[in-house]
Amino acid sequence: MEIENQVPVQDVTFTQSDIDGLYKTIFNRRDVRSQFKPDPIPDDVLARILQAAHHAPSVGFMQPWNFLVIKSPDVKQQIHDAFTEANEEAAKMFDQEKQKSYRSLKLEGILEAPINLCITCDRSKAGPVVLGRTHIKTMDLYSSVCAVQNLWLAARAEGVGVGWMSIIKEEAFHSILGIPEEVVPIAYLCMGYVSHFNKKPELETAKWRERLPLSEQVFFDQWQQTKTGEQEGLIAELDLNADFPQKFTNLYPG
Amino acid sequence: MEIENQVPVQDVTFTQSDIDGLYKTIFNRRDVRSQFKPDPIPDDVLARILQAAHHAPSVGFMQPWNFLVIKSPDVKQQIHDAFTEANEEAAKMFDQEKQKSYRSLKLEGILEAPINLCITCDRSKAGPVVLGRTHIKTMDLYSSVCAVQNLWLAARAEGVGVGWMSIIKEEAFHSILGIPEEVVPIAYLCMGYVSHFNKKPELETAKWRERLPLSEQVFFDQWQQTKTGEQEGLIAELDLNADFPQKFTNLYPG
Repeated sequence: MEIENQVPVQDVTFTQSDIDGLYKTIFNRRDVRSQFKPDPIPDDVLARILQAAHHAPSVGFMQPWNFLVIKSPDVKQQIHDAFTEANEEAAKMFDQEKQKSYRSLKLEGILEAPINLCITCDRSKAGPVVLGRTHIKTMDLYSSVCAVQNLWLAARAEGVGVGWMSIIKEEAFHSILGIPEEVVPIAYLCMGYVSHFNKKPELETAKWRERLPLSEQVFFDQWQQTKTGEQEGLIAELDLNADFPQKFTNLYPG
Repeated sequence: MEIENQVPVQDVTFTQSDIDGLYKTIFNRRDVRSQFKPDPIPDDVLARILQAAHHAPSVGFMQPWNFLVIKSPDVKQQIHDAFTEANEEAAKMFDQEKQKSYRSLKLEGILEAPINLCITCDRSKAGPVVLGRTHIKTMDLYSSVCAVQNLWLAARAEGVGVGWMSIIKEEAFHSILGIPEEVVPIAYLCMGYVSHFNKKPELETAKWRERLPLSEQVFFDQWQQTKTGEQEGLIAELDLNADFPQKFTNLYPG
């Protein structure tokens, strides 16, 4: 029985083409807010994207997610109204200079995207005691986030843009979508085909914030302990190959 | 300037080989606890995997993650001790029958895996007001989870097994790894090459819990609203192609 579930090690190595397909997707995935086209997403495409989400890792194999597919113009409009109210509050939280920049950004595509999708976490889905959630209680929320990321990558590979809209009061999701109190709305995603994908994150292009150097985000054995002896090889590698992602984003003419 | 950042739409379509590479990775990714080999992960491989993590989406382009690479046998042993204590507490939370099954499962590979990796969320990394985190305060935690999932997929494609170990008191991460209070340890991952990958999740094989039917996890426009009219196409598609993931896991002989 256990043997049947095993994949011999000589068969687990992916081809370079498989590996490149993954990296190409990861490095070209973008948060899309403003390039949605009205073309519907065919059911077979959406089905594959949802399968990818459903095969995310989950604590105790809990699969705590549900997928709420929203096409109703009325529901979208209510969500958009709640966004608009929250976005005005949000803008005022930034100081004058940053606020001007903030107000110039388009931060959602609720009405234009043919599909909005809310991914939730039903904390009661596998009973009160969940393997792996006994001590760290947020593990089930994190499982639903893994589903979001799988979905986002599958969508990118299928040519579908996804934007995560988080500027809204959480209560709005409960009241507008009828989500019960014990279910946590994890992500509200705007999805659709796009006129183009951007090469870089929009917030990087707009100089809102810079890409941090990866080698400076890595510690060894203890928090804030930087390169020591044998560990220097990894840091050197990260600095030397800092342009590895660009090899995939540069596949497209600028 | 904006033009330079655009990728013309005719170039955004991935080849079938790219798409298959992604799906192959998603559907063959496993939570590994017991098949680690001692072979070191070369620095160039680990660097690529970390690049994938670093290119996860993040709220307000915050990049709140740090990567704490742990190779020290002493640190691993302390984490393992904290796991053992928590795991004993965890076992007792299940009723008699389930407890027996729980105790038969191997739930971590801390000491065997050549690398342990803690991915964190530094909530202060982009100042007090973060674009997109103004109303939903957990968004930065979710960003770090997206980094975990990107890392997990990149590792799988590179032939590296990853297991998420969550049976531990969160305080242990702070005290053993020196992580400050304002930084949240999101995931503790055991990583290494493996003797084999399993075809199915171990908890599915062990009949701990079943894979839920995806078509039953999908709602339309409102919570618990099931197929209505035009939406039936998606449900039919999900049921018809429920074996889509198996097309990729069956690439390997069982």
